[in-house]
Amino acid sequence: MTVSIHPILGLPEIAPGDDLAAMLADAIAAGGLGPQKGDVLVVTHKVVSKAEGSVVHVADDNYYRRVVEEQAVDVLRRRGDLVIARTRHGFICANAGVDRSNAEPGTAVLLPIRPDRSAHELRRSLLRATGVDVPVVVTDTFGRPWRRGLVDVAIGVSGIEAIIDLRGTTDAKGRVLQATEIAIVDEIAAAADLVMGKAGSIPAALIRGLSVPRGDGTAGQLIRPASEDLFR
Amino acid sequence: MTVSIHPILGLPEIAPGDDLAAMLADAIAAGGLGPQKGDVLVVTHKVVSKAEGSVVHVADDNYYRRVVEEQAVDVLRRRGDLVIARTRHGFICANAGVDRSNAEPGTAVLLPIRPDRSAHELRRSLLRATGVDVPVVVTDTFGRPWRRGLVDVAIGVSGIEAIIDLRGTTDAKGRVLQATEIAIVDEIAAAADLVMGKAGSIPAALIRGLSVPRGDGTAGQLIRPASEDLFR
Repeated sequence: MTVSIHPILGLPEIAPGDDLAAMLADAIAAGGLGPQKGDVLVVTHKVVSKAEGSVVHVADDNYYRRVVEEQAVDVLRRRGDLVIARTRHGFICANAGVDRSNAEPGTAVLLPIRPDRSAHELRRSLLRATGVDVPVVVTDTFGRPWRRGLVDVAIGVSGIEAIIDLRGTTDAKGRVLQATEIAIVDEIAAAADLVMGKAGSIPAALIRGLSVPRGDGTAGQLIRPASEDLFR
Repeated sequence: MTVSIHPILGLPEIAPGDDLAAMLADAIAAGGLGPQKGDVLVVTHKVVSKAEGSVVHVADDNYYRRVVEEQAVDVLRRRGDLVIARTRHGFICANAGVDRSNAEPGTAVLLPIRPDRSAHELRRSLLRATGVDVPVVVTDTFGRPWRRGLVDVAIGVSGIEAIIDLRGTTDAKGRVLQATEIAIVDEIAAAADLVMGKAGSIPAALIRGLSVPRGDGTAGQLIRPASEDLFR
């Protein structure tokens, strides 16, 4: 029942049009990691967005701010240069996910257009390349209300349940659990970040030994509908 | 650089007054896990609260609601039976942390009175029992605004940095990182939950291979001051 988290080392710099799945397969093989049945591949969206060409030129800070406004469907809060916005995917995050760190100078990386689809296509390509069907979780680094510090969360999912629903099951005391939906792919994303190194130097990890059910979960399922949300 | 997460199996049911540290040391030894230098011990608060006697009798739902109101310093939102409240520690969570799952019938478990101190005392007792100084993270399961599903987070910390501050360091491109404080103990809490089993059947885990700096972090540092918080 031990779970292990393996950094995927040696990925080259990713550029638009690159075959990210092939590069990941090579790096996994070079690391002697397999992949094996039961593994989950976690990839930061930064390399996914770069491979997909979701990168824009930003001449200066003003232009960057314009890109953020453009990527924001709805702005929840502003403070100084910080914008907390909802993206067209439904994610609520800083600067609508537009990020200049680990981007080429003069550019910013956007979120993938459809991160669940990105995860799905990575999974399919890896299956073709390696013969092993490995669930994929695409991540980003988000802040949270009330708690300081950032954590990695899932923004794209393929091949695995996103939420484990324990409602109706009983605890160790035989008491029926209420409201116990675990955002398992967010916990997977956070766990993977433990080996990703400071400052995003390692953009992917393989998690081995998880007993999470395979399934058709999506990161879209993690977005709380506005009607259920007490904090809009 | 591989990180591994080991469930700590075979802990007995914990009751008020139990020597939790001794029980954990026994279970760790029985599992052949050590502990080793560099390990981090993650313990769900449920067993900490039980050992400390932070358990109350709740005759019925009305009494339970009264306990929740009593534990709440400030109520942020209500919907039906759900109360989102700030506790005296400063945590904002459902039902002010008062939980009837995995509690003896007719009882509810409260948060530890001072979870950072609880973590510190567990760490000191384990050091005496095992000769190894292992950082301790005490966790609870929290919901989040905007995102469905619960994740485990740190509510008590000893012996490790709570937040890794990357501000001022440079990314792989040489760009100075802005606002990159990683809530590393929350990622550790989430990772540990991956082996804790459904419905809280395994209340502790040992994480091995982390390169997180030792330090004097506290879970209190994770609480965003109201003055910085855009979502109060």
